Order: sequence, then structure tokens, then C-alpha cells
Amino acid sequence: MEPVLAHSVRLADDGVHVLDRRSFPFERTWVRCATVADVAKAIEDMVTQSSGPYFAVLWGMVLAAREASGLDAADARAHVGRAGELLEATRRTNNHLRKAVAAVLTAVDAAGPVTGAALEAAALAGAVAGDERYRSRSRALGTATAALLPADGCVLTHCWADLYLTETVAAAHRDGKRLRFICTETRPYLQGARLTAETLAEMGVDTTLITDGMGAAVLSSGEVDALVTAGDRVTMDGHVVNKVGTLGLAVAAHAFDVPFLALVQAPDRLAPTAADVPIEYRPGEEVLSTLGRRTASDRVRGLYPAFDVTPPRFVTSVVTDRGVFAPDRLADYYRGEQQ
Amino acid sequence: MEPVLAHSVRLADDGVHVLDRRSFPFERTWVRCATVADVAKAIEDMVTQSSGPYFAVLWGMVLAAREASGLDAADARAHVGRAGELLEATRRTNNHLRKAVAAVLTAVDAAGPVTGAALEAAALAGAVAGDERYRSRSRALGTATAALLPADGCVLTHCWADLYLTETVAAAHRDGKRLRFICTETRPYLQGARLTAETLAEMGVDTTLITDGMGAAVLSSGEVDALVTAGDRVTMDGHVVNKVGTLGLAVAAHAFDVPFLALVQAPDRLAPTAADVPIEYRPGEEVLSTLGRRTASDRVRGLYPAFDVTPPRFVTSVVTDRGVFAPDRLADYYRGEQQ
Repeated sequence: MEPVLAHSVRLADDGVHVLDRRSFPFERTWVRCATVADVAKAIEDMVTQSSGPYFAVLWGMVLAAREASGLDAADARAHVGRAGELLEATRRTNNHLRKAVAAVLTAVDAAGPVTGAALEAAALAGAVAGDERYRSRSRALGTATAALLPADGCVLTHCWADLYLTETVAAAHRDGKRLRFICTETRPYLQGARLTAETLAEMGVDTTLITDGMGAAVLSSGEVDALVTAGDRVTMDGHVVNKVGTLGLAVAAHAFDVPFLALVQAPDRLAPTAADVPIEYRPGEEVLSTLGRRTASDRVRGLYPAFDVTPPRFVTSVVTDRGVFAPDRLADYYRGEQQ
Repeated sequence: MEPVLAHSVRLADDGVHVLDRRSFPFERTWVRCATVADVAKAIEDMVTQSSGPYFAVLWGMVLAAREASGLDAADARAHVGRAGELLEATRRTNNHLRKAVAAVLTAVDAAGPVTGAALEAAALAGAVAGDERYRSRSRALGTATAALLPADGCVLTHCWADLYLTETVAAAHRDGKRLRFICTETRPYLQGARLTAETLAEMGVDTTLITDGMGAAVLSSGEVDALVTAGDRVTMDGHVVNKVGTLGLAVAAHAFDVPFLALVQAPDRLAPTAADVPIEYRPGEEVLSTLGRRTASDRVRGLYPAFDVTPPRFVTSVVTDRGVFAPDRLADYYRGEQQ
């Protein structure tokens, strides 16, 4: 079964509809974005996250083409270009947004000077291609990951690995494999409890939730066959930068001989080493509450490193859309490509 | 400054007053227990935890002596004995409760057949002795722990190490040491956020709160000088059984060369190995909420191993009331004692 989070941004005649992940799964509400500005605001307001902003930008660019359809070709192209700048600016550090904008603009520019229905058709074609490219790469990655897992096994995961996770599960099901999952809750925003566990349950997977402190206990018990997480970024020398908490699980997996698979479409050629990836520190205040309720008194200060860095010695394999690589062989991913 | 949790069970003319840790620190309310039955109910209802039940039993036994003061000596002794059975039964796996009952009954029996004011005086003397013994052992342990810490350093701690923590801080302050603390929040009940961080702040310590998944990131940063936790039980072969989450921190500390000090008054002679310590699994449902709010939907199942077991290879030192021991030298604690 396709879980709702696998298609949580949808284009319709009345705009782009974005599933509100902030209240998911307790409420399943969709935010309708009638304009490009609405899409930008939804991204900024964290209505969606992970791959959600990528898809929101793709479909938001189609809205921009619709908005411009009454203009002449030059003004229409300018309007769509400005929309791209607006959407990219919502999350400046997210490379995926630039790729989504480029997917649509490339298709528009390939169509020549167009407006009206032709402009919208070109933008739509670009968005569909961008959507399909992201999904097919995730599918390849998921297929490669599932191939590494046992026929009947238990996987520990952390945070929300998005389409990498759902494609891994879908591939395992196609292969006739039977996987159980244990998910960490992933404080402070509980992506594991709210997104991962819910989505796995939707897919019919036997799913167990633990708190973030319980991972090592579960890994030491012998019941886990693999630790599998996304890699938000993977450096060329094999460091996995991912949601804080990944490092502790990876170190424990290593101590108890459980393989750690880090999933990423491609290692990041712009980041030769971990020193090239600045770690985002979010406001410490965000640690001091859960679901809007305070967890500590005003006397206490919080610290929130949003990501941690797992050194390659704790990484068994990096799984990409081009297959499986040892963390010290990531240059092979790009072998044969022009530098 | 003495923090409120260091004296959170108090005897008064109108009964035993127990600080309600369930709502601490958001509310500072005291539950008055006018009778032994009230004390037993408060312990069962989790009004207090950690060393709190030990002290509640000590002072509850004094209430029992008061209740019995109008009876003849034989009936009074029987009443106090039944009170001890009732209080011990509130948490059958807690050895400390038996010790608290024994402390008072020993003093009562030493006084001979007594009732009235003499009975109450004997019970009070026993309770005071039991109180002082627990505090002086914790003080010795805290002094030994503080001696291992640098003059200006950063300590990572997990859950609530109770008087071991407060005595360590008090000893460090006496030694002129300046310690900063980082505390995990300790889901699902947030003892780190609610008890530890609050108490350290009360003691004037620079205190930072993190979520349970952030420990490895902090340990890998180089800023932590020691990981310090209680050991709920320490086996004679050096396994540390403590609140779930300790294992993951210990493994990460080991990976990043940070010493791990486990604090316990004495290793447990009744537990030669980890196999002798059954691990309590609490209802999985308790993982699925924080402070009364659901964190996952009804589709999801929780798992709650309340403790984990850290093997001796990840333990640097076990600190006791008789000083510091390597985890493979715990038999030395009892050297010279009769077996």
C-alpha cells in the first residue's frame, strides 16, 4: 500500500495541496496553496519537510506558469523566473530546491518563447520529469538497500528516511522479504514517532517505537539485523551527516556487530570531508518542549545540534541510486563522469 | 545551596510530607501522608522515586510507631511489623525498602518491649540512623567522584543520579572545582529534564539540557571530560544496570575516549553476573506519550525496556562509598568482610 507521505504534495486545479506534517498523524489536514506565494509560505512555515519542499517547488513552479499564462512570452518567463527565486529562498541550504526550480525552467526554456497553455504544458512536463527522476533514483536506492537485508529480519531506523525508506520497504515486499522495523521517536520533533512509525504501519510493516535512548539496548540484544538511516549528506571521504542521534546508533551498532547502512542518492562532491559541512545549530529552546508542552523549567538552557557526523569507521555501507559503496570507495560513484 | 530534591520526604507532626515528583518542577506540591497507609499509597502512586521511597519508608515507620502508641507493647510491635510489611510490598523489587524497615525495627527491638513515647522515640532513632547512613554513604561516594573530575570541567549525565549527583556537586564545590553539566532529558518520564537539570540549576551549576539522541554528538565534540551516571545495580563482574540510555552513552564515551564513571554505594553481591539481574520491561504504552500527550498514533506499538546493561569493557570506574574500583576488581570492595 502506498502511504500518504509518499505523495504528500499534490497539484490540482485549485492549487498545490500540501499535507501538514506538523500535526500528522494526529490530524490529516492538507494546506491548499492557491499561489506561488502560498507555496513559499507553506515551505517556510514547515508545513512539509524532507523531500516535501522539493515536490512543493516542482508543483509551485507549475502554478507560476499558470499565473503567467496571460502575459506575453518575455514577461511570462520573467514571472516564472522570479517564482523560482522566491521558492529557492525559502530554505537556502537545501540544494534540492534549486534542482526542482532548474527542472522546470530547463523544460520551459527548451520549449522556446512560450506563454499560455504551451507555457503551462512545458512547466508541467518539467515538473513531472523532476518528480519521476527523484522517485526513480529513490526506487533504485531502495532496491539496492532491500537486497542487503535478510529475508526475514529486523531493521532499526532513526528519524524519517522518506522515500528511501518507503522504496526500501516496497522493494523488500516485491522480493518477498518480511521485515520488522524498530523506530526511534526522534526528539525534539518526533519525526520517528509521527512520520516513520505511522508510514511503516500504513505499509503493513510490523513496527515498534522506542525512545531515542533505547537504541543501544535494542542493538545489544541481537535482534536487529541492520541499522538503516538516511544520510542527509555524505561526504566524499565517507562521513555521514544526518539527524542528530544517528552517530550514537552507528557507534552502538558497530560495538555490537550490526551493519549500518546509510542511504543517500549520491555522495556530495561539494563536500570532500566533514569539515566542508557546517552543522546547523537550531535554537536550544526547541529542546525544552514536546508537542508544545514544556519539558523543563525556565531555569534550564537547551542545546540543539540538528545533525551529527558519523565517521566512516562506523559506517558499513553507503547505499545510493547506483548501488552499494564502502565508505572509503565513494569516488567510484562518479567514476567515468566528467569532473 | 541544598536543592529541594535532597530533602524531599519530611516528617512533621501531622504526618509525612512527600514532594510530588510527578509534576516537579512545574509545580512544587507536597503530598501529606497522615497514616502509614497514605505513605504506602504515595509510594505506589509514584509520588516519589529513586531514593525517595527509602526515606518515605523510614519516616512512615515512625508514623506506624505513633499510631501504635496507645496499644500495649506486644500489639504495638505487631502493628509496627505489619506496617513494615505493607511498606515493603509497595515495590517488591526495591531492596532499599527492606533496609529502611529493618533500620527502624532493629532500633525498636533493641529498646525491648516498649510502647507510647518510648516506642516512638526508638522508631525515630532508627529512622534517623537509617537516614544518616544513606546520606553519609552517598557523601563518601560523591567525594570520591568529585576527586576524579577536573578543576574546571564538563560532565555528561543521564537520568537522575539522586544524592550521588548532589553529593558529587557539593564535594566538587567544597574542593573549589567548577563543573558544567550536560543532562539528557531521559524519555519517557523526563527525569533528566525535570529532576536533574532543575536540581543542578538550583545548586548554581551551569546546566545544559539535550535530548537523549544528542549524547554521542556531545561526546564526540571533545567538550565532555567525563560521563557520570548512577548504577541502579552493579554486578560483581562489572556490568552496570541502569536507566535505559546509559549503554548508548557509555559505548559512545568509549568510542571517543571519554571516561565513564558509574556510581553505586556498593556492588551487588547477590548478582555475580548480568544474568542474575532480570531486566524490567514496563508497558510499551508508556513510550507513546510525553507529559500526558500522545506522541504517536494508535497504529503504533511501543517497547519500554526500563534498564539496559553496560558491559565492563565500556566502564572506566565504579565509584562507591569505599572509593574507586576498576570494573574487574569489584570483589575488592568486600575484601576483609566475612562472606
